[in-house]
Amino acid sequence: MQPMEFPHRRRNPLNGQWVLVSPHRNNRPWHGATEAAFEPDLPAFKADCPLCPAVERANGDSNPDYSETFVFTNDFAALLEDSPEVSSASDELMQVETAQGCARVMCFSPEHDKTLAEMTVPQLTQVVNTWQSQYQELSQSYACIQIFENKGEIMGCSQPHPHGQIWAHHHLSSEVSAEDRHQAGYYLQHDRPLLADYVERELNEQTRIVEQNDDWLAVVPFWAAWPFEILLVARADIRDFGDLDKAQKTSLASILKNITTRYDNLFQCRFPYSMGWHNAPANGQDNCHWRLHAHFYPPLLRSATIKKHMVGYEMLAESQRDLTPEKAAGALRQTSLTHYKETSS
Amino acid sequence: MQPMEFPHRRRNPLNGQWVLVSPHRNNRPWHGATEAAFEPDLPAFKADCPLCPAVERANGDSNPDYSETFVFTNDFAALLEDSPEVSSASDELMQVETAQGCARVMCFSPEHDKTLAEMTVPQLTQVVNTWQSQYQELSQSYACIQIFENKGEIMGCSQPHPHGQIWAHHHLSSEVSAEDRHQAGYYLQHDRPLLADYVERELNEQTRIVEQNDDWLAVVPFWAAWPFEILLVARADIRDFGDLDKAQKTSLASILKNITTRYDNLFQCRFPYSMGWHNAPANGQDNCHWRLHAHFYPPLLRSATIKKHMVGYEMLAESQRDLTPEKAAGALRQTSLTHYKETSS
Ligand SMILES: O=P(O)(O)O[C@H]1O[C@H](CO)[C@@H](O)[C@H](O)[C@H]1O
Ligand SMILES: O=P(O)(O)O[C@H]1O[C@H](CO)[C@@H](O)[C@H](O)[C@H]1O
Repeated sequence: MQPMEFPHRRRNPLNGQWVLVSPHRNNRPWHGATEAAFEPDLPAFKADCPLCPAVERANGDSNPDYSETFVFTNDFAALLEDSPEVSSASDELMQVETAQGCARVMCFSPEHDKTLAEMTVPQLTQVVNTWQSQYQELSQSYACIQIFENKGEIMGCSQPHPHGQIWAHHHLSSEVSAEDRHQAGYYLQHDRPLLADYVERELNEQTRIVEQNDDWLAVVPFWAAWPFEILLVARADIRDFGDLDKAQKTSLASILKNITTRYDNLFQCRFPYSMGWHNAPANGQDNCHWRLHAHFYPPLLRSATIKKHMVGYEMLAESQRDLTPEKAAGALRQTSLTHYKETSS
Repeated sequence: MQPMEFPHRRRNPLNGQWVLVSPHRNNRPWHGATEAAFEPDLPAFKADCPLCPAVERANGDSNPDYSETFVFTNDFAALLEDSPEVSSASDELMQVETAQGCARVMCFSPEHDKTLAEMTVPQLTQVVNTWQSQYQELSQSYACIQIFENKGEIMGCSQPHPHGQIWAHHHLSSEVSAEDRHQAGYYLQHDRPLLADYVERELNEQTRIVEQNDDWLAVVPFWAAWPFEILLVARADIRDFGDLDKAQKTSLASILKNITTRYDNLFQCRFPYSMGWHNAPANGQDNCHWRLHAHFYPPLLRSATIKKHMVGYEMLAESQRDLTPEKAAGALRQTSLTHYKETSS
């Protein structure tokens, strides 16, 4: 066995967290809970879905009869624009801070039964365009714009209708703030963005790449915590969503199509994940240390019904994974780029 | 509404992470996945359970006919004692490190159908004694001894038989290392352990206390991320499990009984959680900044079937909670100290 086939740790240079890798453990039997694999046949329109076009939502608002994407303020927003000021910066043990912001829901498509993987590249380009216009609008008011998608019941997603969310606030979240600090530290030392150097390393090593085109690189990062985690990075000097030009948006739509198709094909299911974008803080600064990127955190480990549980040791100590990121990237590369539903129909 | 009923953030001084609190969101309806509430009636002995006394495990080893607790090396250990040396400390982007250690399974009771909540205080004292002797043995060889329990299928626990795990290794895990850094920083500034001061604050404020006795304090911490999270802290200057005397071990058994009983009674179910101990590093140093404590991270939010999903925003940005820690502590305090199964039988 090679040294890297024994237990070892790898460090995530973006947030400073380590992950314990135990490649030999991949063969352990599983007697615990399995997830439901049942995939209901969804209709293209469902009158009681609050995200479908032209329906009335619980609060009395009506959705427009939209045909591409549609954004509205979350009826149960975790953030409000007018939270009163509180601050106790001097109270080290019980530190509180105001959180002012907003939370929006973004429907990716009027069709209730679609997922990103099943949408066309022009439709995905519309999703990317909406992400950009939302980013441009919200970055006028807020420093931290968290665009994300929870996909699948297993990820706590309460609606199958294809949608994501955008939460925006003045403060930097814990994770964005850690990534900001680590990227700034690297830049100070090397005069190069951390992710620029990382992209170069991955292009040289060719072992963890899942998809690439002229503008984007998708890898299972060296420090991946989730079994089939993907890091999607802009190859040019792009710091936030506002910087993307037309060609970069189309090529983003196309790599999104490929990533989500490979995901669905891996275990022949509507592959669940949380994904989201990390933009440079919209703080009026240059942020030359930042590189726009997205993380995909999918929970499945071995099949459509066996997921990786980040519990016990992972909550109290650090993330742990069984198969290596290199093996995971290899498995994803071997999937087809034709969606399994197309093949079977 | 009070300022703290609006969205705000609170900071965990032990690890430096913030949590977003959105108290007004507690009333939002839930249309997503629910968890199975079905609780099988378990037998006291199950011949095909690998943790029951006197059974043969898959690898051919036989369990002794034990009557209190029983510890053995995990048949699929995530850590091995003889992993070869690897190190790439100078490679900032792809940093690797050896992980040498061991992983053990610890049966809490020979009875297949028991949980900590349903065991007697003398039986729980046996569990505490075994934690101590394991700590004492393993701290001879390793700096970081992670004692933990995953309880419930929802927590990825593959065996209902009451058991925990102990993973020990030379390196400090990410979380223990963060807690070490923050506690050391606080001590340097105040000449007092962070958790000593925190215990005093909680005893004064009386709003987040769930249980207390002469030696232990259990609170829903000010910075709790999980809905009914509990921090259990030693009240005396105890730095690791080796320091506990006989009285402190008995009073620990008794507070464990109370905490787990309140948990089970909250939603009248075998309350799932991950819990574990954070000891000072066994590094031969004084560690006067440390205070021995345990974290309970339970996922349930509103009932036996509705859990909090730490997904999307939480994975990409920071933890988010709906009800305040003060409300959660109040709800736990209102539960009975007689286990619901005793009442109903
Ligand atoms: O060792 P077990 O119970 O089989 O496995 C469980 O606990 C481990 C330690 O927290 C986790 O790494 C696994 O993901 C989880 O399924
Ligand atoms: O907003 P939703 O989809 O109802 O809720 C889901 O996503 C949120 C943002 O990640 C989480 O805080 C919730 O726990 C989850 O259930």
